[in-house]
Amino acid sequence: MSAASDSVPRGATAGTPAGLVTPQRLAEFFAPRSLALVGASDTSGWARFILAASSAVGYSGPLLPVHPRHDTVFGLPAVPSLRDLAEPPDLAFVLAPTAAVTEVLEDAAAAGIRNVVVLASGYREAGRAGRELEADLVARAASHGIVLLGPNCLGFLNTGAKVAPFALTVPLPLTPGPVGIALQSGALSSALLAFARSQAIGVSTVASLGNEAMISTSDVLDYLIADEQTKVICLFLEEIGDPASFSAAAQRADQAGKPIVALKVGVSQAGQQAALAHTGAVAGDDAVADAALRQLNIIRVASIEELLTTASLLGYQQVPRGRRMGVLTASGGACDIIADRASAEGIEIPSFADSTTEAIAAHLPSFAAARNPLDVTGYVLANARTSPLTAIDHALDAALADPGLDFVIFTGFTVPEARPADERLAELLESRIGWLAERVRTAPIPAIPLSLTCVDIGPYARDQLLGHDVHLISGMDLGVEAIGNALRWQERRGTVRQLPGRRPPLRAPAAWSEARARSLLDGAGIPVVPGQLAHSADEAVAAAHAVGRPVAVKISSAAITHKSDVGGVVIGLHGDDEIRAAYARVAAAAVSTTGAIAGDPAGEVLVTAMRNGGVEVLAGVTVDPNFGPVLAVGLGGVLVEVLSDVSLRVLPVGADEVARMLGELRGLPLLTGARGAAPADLDALAKVIAGIADVAVALPGLQALEVNPLWVSGDQIEALDVLVVTDEIADEEGEPDR
Amino acid sequence: MSAASDSVPRGATAGTPAGLVTPQRLAEFFAPRSLALVGASDTSGWARFILAASSAVGYSGPLLPVHPRHDTVFGLPAVPSLRDLAEPPDLAFVLAPTAAVTEVLEDAAAAGIRNVVVLASGYREAGRAGRELEADLVARAASHGIVLLGPNCLGFLNTGAKVAPFALTVPLPLTPGPVGIALQSGALSSALLAFARSQAIGVSTVASLGNEAMISTSDVLDYLIADEQTKVICLFLEEIGDPASFSAAAQRADQAGKPIVALKVGVSQAGQQAALAHTGAVAGDDAVADAALRQLNIIRVASIEELLTTASLLGYQQVPRGRRMGVLTASGGACDIIADRASAEGIEIPSFADSTTEAIAAHLPSFAAARNPLDVTGYVLANARTSPLTAIDHALDAALADPGLDFVIFTGFTVPEARPADERLAELLESRIGWLAERVRTAPIPAIPLSLTCVDIGPYARDQLLGHDVHLISGMDLGVEAIGNALRWQERRGTVRQLPGRRPPLRAPAAWSEARARSLLDGAGIPVVPGQLAHSADEAVAAAHAVGRPVAVKISSAAITHKSDVGGVVIGLHGDDEIRAAYARVAAAAVSTTGAIAGDPAGEVLVTAMRNGGVEVLAGVTVDPNFGPVLAVGLGGVLVEVLSDVSLRVLPVGADEVARMLGELRGLPLLTGARGAAPADLDALAKVIAGIADVAVALPGLQALEVNPLWVSGDQIEALDVLVVTDEIADEEGEPDR
Repeated sequence: MSAASDSVPRGATAGTPAGLVTPQRLAEFFAPRSLALVGASDTSGWARFILAASSAVGYSGPLLPVHPRHDTVFGLPAVPSLRDLAEPPDLAFVLAPTAAVTEVLEDAAAAGIRNVVVLASGYREAGRAGRELEADLVARAASHGIVLLGPNCLGFLNTGAKVAPFALTVPLPLTPGPVGIALQSGALSSALLAFARSQAIGVSTVASLGNEAMISTSDVLDYLIADEQTKVICLFLEEIGDPASFSAAAQRADQAGKPIVALKVGVSQAGQQAALAHTGAVAGDDAVADAALRQLNIIRVASIEELLTTASLLGYQQVPRGRRMGVLTASGGACDIIADRASAEGIEIPSFADSTTEAIAAHLPSFAAARNPLDVTGYVLANARTSPLTAIDHALDAALADPGLDFVIFTGFTVPEARPADERLAELLESRIGWLAERVRTAPIPAIPLSLTCVDIGPYARDQLLGHDVHLISGMDLGVEAIGNALRWQERRGTVRQLPGRRPPLRAPAAWSEARARSLLDGAGIPVVPGQLAHSADEAVAAAHAVGRPVAVKISSAAITHKSDVGGVVIGLHGDDEIRAAYARVAAAAVSTTGAIAGDPAGEVLVTAMRNGGVEVLAGVTVDPNFGPVLAVGLGGVLVEVLSDVSLRVLPVGADEVARMLGELRGLPLLTGARGAAPADLDALAKVIAGIADVAVALPGLQALEVNPLWVSGDQIEALDVLVVTDEIADEEGEPDR
Repeated sequence: MSAASDSVPRGATAGTPAGLVTPQRLAEFFAPRSLALVGASDTSGWARFILAASSAVGYSGPLLPVHPRHDTVFGLPAVPSLRDLAEPPDLAFVLAPTAAVTEVLEDAAAAGIRNVVVLASGYREAGRAGRELEADLVARAASHGIVLLGPNCLGFLNTGAKVAPFALTVPLPLTPGPVGIALQSGALSSALLAFARSQAIGVSTVASLGNEAMISTSDVLDYLIADEQTKVICLFLEEIGDPASFSAAAQRADQAGKPIVALKVGVSQAGQQAALAHTGAVAGDDAVADAALRQLNIIRVASIEELLTTASLLGYQQVPRGRRMGVLTASGGACDIIADRASAEGIEIPSFADSTTEAIAAHLPSFAAARNPLDVTGYVLANARTSPLTAIDHALDAALADPGLDFVIFTGFTVPEARPADERLAELLESRIGWLAERVRTAPIPAIPLSLTCVDIGPYARDQLLGHDVHLISGMDLGVEAIGNALRWQERRGTVRQLPGRRPPLRAPAAWSEARARSLLDGAGIPVVPGQLAHSADEAVAAAHAVGRPVAVKISSAAITHKSDVGGVVIGLHGDDEIRAAYARVAAAAVSTTGAIAGDPAGEVLVTAMRNGGVEVLAGVTVDPNFGPVLAVGLGGVLVEVLSDVSLRVLPVGADEVARMLGELRGLPLLTGARGAAPADLDALAKVIAGIADVAVALPGLQALEVNPLWVSGDQIEALDVLVVTDEIADEEGEPDR
């Protein structure tokens, strides 16, 4: 984490020509059949790691050490330079120090090498000089048609291609499987692989992304989407450097049915948005990233354990078609724990069908009840020595046929550490495992085996489970959480749209007068509460009669953003005299605050109708430096200001997505009729808000557009107050009629 | 789900004489030196489990099978009845079926046996006949001076006394240690022991509580508090059957400095159903149980993993004296994950002192920054083959001396699965482990080693860690969560008070008139907004002048609880004519609704002053069937009604605890000056609310006492509206002046 002023987001190095890093090139890059290790020596820990990783994946191709001063490295013959190799290897892994990397790259080009990994650090992460060095590296590689991973990265491993130019410990055994992993913190991959190993979770490609000078997170996403072995993608993200290409890749993943699960850190970093509008205060960096991930149907998780458990569920299991869960356990306590966890995830545990209850009851002791969640009781365990099948197995058969369930979880698939010494018991056990595995494979709905807690799958269990192509999910807590994640992914499929991405830095802001802001919305067909400008007390009275009383009388001036603070707002006015007096006070406040003379646009007075009852909504758009315009929707007043009860989306969004935003608000009951109010027309409200967002997105130099409140009463919707802020320069150039 | 009328909570069997289940008797009960197994046979799975468990704990005393039809059991000589034993064993474990239990108990008594475990089910959880059977069992045991665990329980194991009359699988190896465990779902103990084994967490006594016919959860708590080996207590709770004794035990635990960690299920309705099915007991309202656990300084957790990780931290580590954490890792990604998790727990990661930074920097590569959280970088790992100490070790030394830190967590204590084959490496490693262990033992502040993820501690690591008396916490996610739990426990110590516990069932309710309810508060010194009864329009006007305008005019009648619904409230009245008119309307509404004549107490009219500005608070007391009177505090209006933003406590509480309740409200900023209001005097507010609670607790036949709103503006506090409901019969008997 370097200082903010020093840091440039990933994926921002200019110089990679379009068409160099293609999916075809990456498929080649991640499956080299020969490797050179440049800078490897017998004392290099990095090289030792690469050798061990190569052995872990069963690599059988050539490993060609290159070192200026050693004849042999780890017993292998070495050459002084890449130029001395007889044939170009498919990939060169450069372990050489930073100062030597440029020369090595030239050597690689001269040797005809097309793919390079650079481990050295001291580039973009090391300030201005490092950034220049990195730009030079990229330009040089590009000019030679070389595709480069890194610098400041630990390489990758690919279990399908059995190759591992990967300079980090790989816990053994490493299981090939459906989970592809890309990390912005390479050193963390050992931790991920250790947990994957402990739960027998198989991986496809694991890539450390480093500085992403050329190959970006989005590129690796595209590679993993195209990779046949990969069924689900895990990301460790410190930032989303290039929202446009990242979101395009996420959209392709969604279309391809490959879920992405992301551990995105940075929750604790304070938001850096200046808070001119309310919206800016609630749209902090992490909140916007969180919204973006949700829009991209990327499952955001909070721990490595949740990341890999969710991925393993999605990689090994069919996703349930709905939320109705059957639960089979051998402990009432386990039923309770699962039920609590399911409730938190919005997963239902409906009653069994009568036929299911009957079928299960036939295998239970008389004192046990055949209900969902099912506790077959410890009695069953204590008496399971004569048949390979226990009551939980029979119950599984029955529950999988229940028409009212979408999936079944069961905790009866625990395999002991070691094969039982008693051969008869061992045979019974293995016969039961085979029977269960067959049931899981052929089940009409997903049958998901869970362990009770997150403990390692031992060697015997690993062999038995892998041998039967069954995957056991790691414990009730992580397991039910993973199911919740998978269901949400399933439910959001098909809604992913590309995001526009980074905006140029904001310039000096200029606030619009309220009258001008109202005209902007009105001109776009957004309903705005009736109002008229008044330039005299008489005009104010006339305006009040025209718009309907009671009215508010307020300053409309580009020069005054906090009009209440200067006495520029009077509300609840009925009588003509009241209105005249209010006009005089407000006009005087405007003149004294702005120095304008009465009638000047800087000192104009606006008379608007007031609304009673109903619910006040906030609909605001601000501009995130990384993601561009962001829409915030919340319920006005206390809920937004005190509880930050808002839903965010990166724009553009349609009305359907705005409807989902409304559905996320804790205060939603206020809109659906709590406290005796008429239920709001949520569809109409979503359309109006989507329209406001469209106006904001189309506005040149947008900095903020906030309607607060947007008043809703049944199907009546009106913007009561509007704030618009744009770049001063855009404002001056684009709007001569100010 | 059985009908509520069928279920009786645990600990509610009458018949156990006071003085039978004493701490002394329980110390004897849980450490028997000889065991009889009644009903054991070669085909009994239960008996097989007991033999295996006995072997797991190293039991060396006699195991005496008793069976009416077998001469030998598992190769041991058996006798037909307990009466045939030469000497009474210290404890008899009764595996016999329900129908035989009574006879076995008589045999035990005749043989002079003092302690019995009963496994059979079919008692309280099985309806009325079962309840009678259980009462008979208890009465019989008590009459013989026998202490009984169960029925419907799986027994216990005690690693200190090396005895295990425990009819469930014990995963091996079983490590003796500081964690005592009591479970209301015995079958779950295998899952707990499996996780404890995987993390090398040592246990003292593990007890399955069953129906708690005689030995209750509270009794076992008291035993564990007195047990020297036990440093921390884990509970799995389906219900808190007897709040009075449970809370008294929790208070003793707090005083003794033994933390209690509880996995209490029943958050979801489905969970409550499962609890009912399993134990035949009523689960109380989860929110009240949650409040009670917080008051008792019992750490409530959501999973088995969190339960045992928190307990292991508390059992093996000194609790940090504050929230300032140093973080040492070998991965920037790990730093980010820990920082996010710490932020969620309210744990600070302050900058290192300059001296710490200098000391650490000396051991880092030049490109790595010596800041908190510290990433010593993978470079260090790759170059750690020449000295036993790595940069993370030197950093540990420096950080432990930092005056600005309260504790340090570090992820550098990971030990490989097996001893390295290279003897030099193995010696370096073991030398390093010894060095680290010494640092952890002698550190001036807690030094807490964490693994990166929740993976098993392998056999070699277990030996190394146990050999050096070091405990490794299970992963960053669970680890930082456990630290947060421990800090909260530490901060709440000394605040635990006993709870009164169950109230008799509520009877027919009687609501009081508002005037009478106001008098009740006023008489107790609670500030009530000025108000007067009026029996005519003239009196209403006089009252308005006396209390100060604007006023509200409303019905004050015991017969009308929803006075707004019948037109019985008019608000915002200034002028005398308005007040006269309002009186007429309200009095008419009272008369027409109640049939009273004007002036009758049923048709009285109350004139109260109105208050503007400020914040409205809800302070209400209701009666929970299990815990008795419960105080709810929230901010009025939307926050309570829509967001359920309330804090609960079982009564009685002091003003200090009410202040903590206010601090828990999400809407707290409204009281501390958000939205421009004057900050409320929270101490004064807490005192008033505590006074209201005291009035409620002292009220005979209390059903509800609610002040809504309690108006707060700066240091002005007044009850604006008061509702009191008591048992009709208490009301009639106790209050003749109604």
